[in-house]
Amino acid sequence: MKLSFEKSDLISGINIVLKAVPAKSPMPILECILIDASAGDIRLTGNDTEIGIETTVEGEILEPGRIALDAKLFSDIVRRMPDDRIYIDSEDSENVRIHCGKANFNISGHQGDDFVMLPEMERNNYICISEFALKEVIGQTIFSIAPGESSSSNPMMSGELFSINGGRLKVVSLDGHRISIRNIDLRDTYGETEVIVPGKTLSEIRSILPGEQDKDVYLYFAKNQIMFEFGSTIVISRLIEGEYFHVDQMISNDYETKITLNRQEFLAAIERSTLLIRESDKKPIIFDIKDGNMEITMNSVIGSMHEEVAVEKSGSDLTIGFNPHFLIDALRVISDEEVSIYLINSKAPCFIRDDEDHYNYMILPINFSR
Amino acid sequence: MKLSFEKSDLISGINIVLKAVPAKSPMPILECILIDASAGDIRLTGNDTEIGIETTVEGEILEPGRIALDAKLFSDIVRRMPDDRIYIDSEDSENVRIHCGKANFNISGHQGDDFVMLPEMERNNYICISEFALKEVIGQTIFSIAPGESSSSNPMMSGELFSINGGRLKVVSLDGHRISIRNIDLRDTYGETEVIVPGKTLSEIRSILPGEQDKDVYLYFAKNQIMFEFGSTIVISRLIEGEYFHVDQMISNDYETKITLNRQEFLAAIERSTLLIRESDKKPIIFDIKDGNMEITMNSVIGSMHEEVAVEKSGSDLTIGFNPHFLIDALRVISDEEVSIYLINSKAPCFIRDDEDHYNYMILPINFSR
Repeated sequence: MKLSFEKSDLISGINIVLKAVPAKSPMPILECILIDASAGDIRLTGNDTEIGIETTVEGEILEPGRIALDAKLFSDIVRRMPDDRIYIDSEDSENVRIHCGKANFNISGHQGDDFVMLPEMERNNYICISEFALKEVIGQTIFSIAPGESSSSNPMMSGELFSINGGRLKVVSLDGHRISIRNIDLRDTYGETEVIVPGKTLSEIRSILPGEQDKDVYLYFAKNQIMFEFGSTIVISRLIEGEYFHVDQMISNDYETKITLNRQEFLAAIERSTLLIRESDKKPIIFDIKDGNMEITMNSVIGSMHEEVAVEKSGSDLTIGFNPHFLIDALRVISDEEVSIYLINSKAPCFIRDDEDHYNYMILPINFSR
Repeated sequence: MKLSFEKSDLISGINIVLKAVPAKSPMPILECILIDASAGDIRLTGNDTEIGIETTVEGEILEPGRIALDAKLFSDIVRRMPDDRIYIDSEDSENVRIHCGKANFNISGHQGDDFVMLPEMERNNYICISEFALKEVIGQTIFSIAPGESSSSNPMMSGELFSINGGRLKVVSLDGHRISIRNIDLRDTYGETEVIVPGKTLSEIRSILPGEQDKDVYLYFAKNQIMFEFGSTIVISRLIEGEYFHVDQMISNDYETKITLNRQEFLAAIERSTLLIRESDKKPIIFDIKDGNMEITMNSVIGSMHEEVAVEKSGSDLTIGFNPHFLIDALRVISDEEVSIYLINSKAPCFIRDDEDHYNYMILPINFSR
């Protein structure tokens, strides 16, 4: 094999597939990037067997072939090379030469055949969505999946529901204390599909997706797998098996109290309150909702904080407590200048939602005594 | 006590004194910042008893007094406040109110009298140097002090020699494998003074010193202490006791081989070579010096690298090996486009020095076999 690349093209490709390469694995081949120039173009692949990423890189094939190289070493060497054309030559997998200008590296790799190839995917069942919308919708929901440890009892909480019905995509995540729902209007209409995508896959997709408004991502659905295709990159991930929670039953449109307030101001006050909470502490932030204003208080062993925020209120007065971090997560990803919060009583969840039903964040309250 | 501040003034002051506040201390008072508005101006002080920093902050004294507040909490609260005027009121140390706009915090502090005050310093023996020069000279030498652990046997290696003689300041650091020397011409002439300043103090000074070319720092020397004064800030530190190494005896001006080469190109090649070294490895980088060019090689279990660099050579051919990290440290802080390296033989130290005697970096070679 003998290939040459512009340094910047090669680095862009490496950066994409690196997201699927584990830092440490009992199988050294999984710590590799496959360079495949056997079929007319040059493809880089990373695959940790849960998620696999393949991308096509611009470059010249002077002699076809394929080889797997330790991802970190390969990536570091390429980055450190002078800004010049980079050449990769290999007689066999034991002897790979990477050179650029007067700098030469000789390292050993693995045979391309040893690499764990990505599965073949059918391309019948799919949807199309802009890069921007997918990137946004992941960011607006990913925070409320349950972290790895606590989801060992229920693996579905470590993923997000992608539910397609006609012209709408609904994305849902929940962790037992809160639910995040985002609805997206699709440009076309599709049949009914429901899959649960691992949170890790979505985080990686979000980090490599350029997020442009006028470029599209295709999502292909198969029995146990999902494939994302954008630009010259594909990402294939396993799905989480099972039937997702019946979220619609947990959502209510009834309310006793509705408040509307400035999002930034509200967020800043809640963020300030968290300075008084030590990590393991479960101190609630308490809202006293009255006509025209809401008093925010936080009391802890460290000190106390109180602050008044202007609100537009309809319905009854109410005193209610929340985990401030759950409110912060939701308020940070909403882009509206004003938000409306719907409440029933001090024991019932609140809903932060917009009139167009684009987002709905449900958060359970915390009991507190004064 | 009742004070008010512009948020930005208060934050600047806090950022400076925070450098002398330990993150964790068995004495909670050391984790505090003292706010002293008892003597007509407002001073903030942090003091971990090894190094103490005091700075004067712009602000209004509505009622004089002094109080010590937990540094992290105080700093976090001030940062999180709205962009408005910040008020600090205290009836007594148990009850301190920090407020800004509609946001109110109540925390408890400590009595100002409990704070460990900075020692008084005499101001007879001093030198004056520009902020820029002091900041630069620290950065150009600090890397070759011995790290905390290994210097337990010889505490002097954890500090730097500041030696003043007439119109010259010489700053020296060494760790048993290398010596870094920087000479600075002072604007005035002074008597002879030699002190050993702890490396930690110099690192903190470097991080808070604005580093302007047309502003000065005064260094005051006392028996066991040094004081740095710049702007409205003073830093007082203990000194390391003892007689410093006789560095002049370790330096030689004789050489058998001299090479001159492009610093950036040389540095990039050495940095590349380190990709083949695992952390605990002691692999040398090997230079084969011939007329007109130098071959650089590195061999390790990971792979091999070789590269040619153009050099201007006088004297004998030579093959010699070094710890690449020691060369990198020196080459990174030199600002000259070309550097000259003086060598004797493969067992003797090399010297990277300029013709004006502004810097001299001595590095011991590493034995190697081929």
